[in-house]
Amino acid sequence: MNEFRLDLTVRDYECDLQGIVNNATYLNYLEHTRHEFLKSLGIDFAGMHQQGIDLVVVRSEVDYKYSLTSGDSFYVTLKMALEGRIRIVFYQDIFRLPDNKPIIKGKITGTALSSQGRPFLPDEIKEILLKI
Amino acid sequence: MNEFRLDLTVRDYECDLQGIVNNATYLNYLEHTRHEFLKSLGIDFAGMHQQGIDLVVVRSEVDYKYSLTSGDSFYVTLKMALEGRIRIVFYQDIFRLPDNKPIIKGKITGTALSSQGRPFLPDEIKEILLKI
Amino acid sequence: MNEFRLDLTVRDYECDLQGIVNNATYLNYLEHTRHEFLKSLGIDFAGMHQQGIDLVVVRSEVDYKYSLTSGDSFYVTLKMALEGRIRIVFYQDIFRLPDNKPIIKGKITGTALSSQGRPFLPDEIKEILLKI
Amino acid sequence: MNEFRLDLTVRDYECDLQGIVNNATYLNYLEHTRHEFLKSLGIDFAGMHQQGIDLVVVRSEVDYKYSLTSGDSFYVTLKMALEGRIRIVFYQDIFRLPDNKPIIKGKITGTALSSQGRPFLPDEIKEILLKI
Repeated sequence: MNEFRLDLTVRDYECDLQGIVNNATYLNYLEHTRHEFLKSLGIDFAGMHQQGIDLVVVRSEVDYKYSLTSGDSFYVTLKMALEGRIRIVFYQDIFRLPDNKPIIKGKITGTALSSQGRPFLPDEIKEILLKI
Repeated sequence: MNEFRLDLTVRDYECDLQGIVNNATYLNYLEHTRHEFLKSLGIDFAGMHQQGIDLVVVRSEVDYKYSLTSGDSFYVTLKMALEGRIRIVFYQDIFRLPDNKPIIKGKITGTALSSQGRPFLPDEIKEILLKI
Repeated sequence: MNEFRLDLTVRDYECDLQGIVNNATYLNYLEHTRHEFLKSLGIDFAGMHQQGIDLVVVRSEVDYKYSLTSGDSFYVTLKMALEGRIRIVFYQDIFRLPDNKPIIKGKITGTALSSQGRPFLPDEIKEILLKI
Repeated sequence: MNEFRLDLTVRDYECDLQGIVNNATYLNYLEHTRHEFLKSLGIDFAGMHQQGIDLVVVRSEVDYKYSLTSGDSFYVTLKMALEGRIRIVFYQDIFRLPDNKPIIKGKITGTALSSQGRPFLPDEIKEILLKI
């Protein structure tokens, strides 16, 4: 697959008292990028929830290499792979602009839960994996 | 009615790069206090949503008098009054502990929306107002 | 002055359990727009903090007219006026795209605090007000 | 060392449109617990920042086992260990109350940065590790 990329800018309220983006906020950036990626493929996170299918994170791993701060622009990359039969892994890194300095290296593993709470891989996601 | 009161502590991630609690975060504190107040009366915000009734804010007014910062403890007060036939006003102030320094003075106006999006006053809320 | 405008998109994590953007999050949108406006005029919020000058909110008033939800795009407008000798008022509204539906109508009053905590109007801000 | 424990309650604004606590919010819970733990030992996160020492996260790993939702109470546990010469590992798990259901299992690695941005282990932290 081609790597998906989303360009964003630090918002001042995302910085904490150290003057740098708070460690939890990077998880927000990664989630927003995943949802924009899925939307670009016609998959609507909120719409799936309304159908009773919840895409959920089962594991997150983030290496924090350097901090983003007020005024920084950056981009988030995303590559997706199947892990086992019902887990999807999103490799997601963040780089500062314009110098491409590595900021974080992330690996987010997700699955879908049926309305009965059973993990499964929805057909919409399977089709994406076949295409890429 | 007796004034409702909730005691809380500043969490460091709630402070922004100025080292003080961000202006938006006080709205979180006020919302959490309203929901705890409603819960103390047997009204469950999330449960109402599942029944198709959404309690929503229609106006917020906040005077910021002094800033909370890392390490501060504080309490949020709440008094409730009917405004017109379908609006509820929550008077909510925040005071720092232990010196009772006034931090913010807030007035939050809310109503309920039916599943058709029509504003109304649910019977559960009416009953509270009759009791107090 | 010409009205400043910032275009944004709802991020799913900004929606709460009602499936709509949480009332506090609009304050984040308004703050981010003010800071981008100031930056467009050469004023850096974080930089001023490092010089010992803190731009702070002293009052916020928001009328919530309609809710933003997952997938919505919107824009925030900003007009600025002097109130008395040391207060600045930002009139900031949010409209949904592409139908321009009014979402919120906000009035945010701010001032600057010197390193001694005294409210004042920094020269950089005065110059902006003279130009517009 | 004895395990540190902090009891908390889900706040409704921490839940996202799926009606469950958002994945990034658990990082907030873990950070707040670390800071309360450090405070219990006389170490002030904000105070260290003012001295030019920044405690930062260099890696986070979280396994999400079950979701917290509106109304849930829970507790966060913390154990701390030295990793190499300048890294501290915090083992932090979350359990729901009153049934002790495991919610997340986390491992957060941190270090301190000097004002020159060099990683090191402050003496205050070393002393804690010797005592426990």
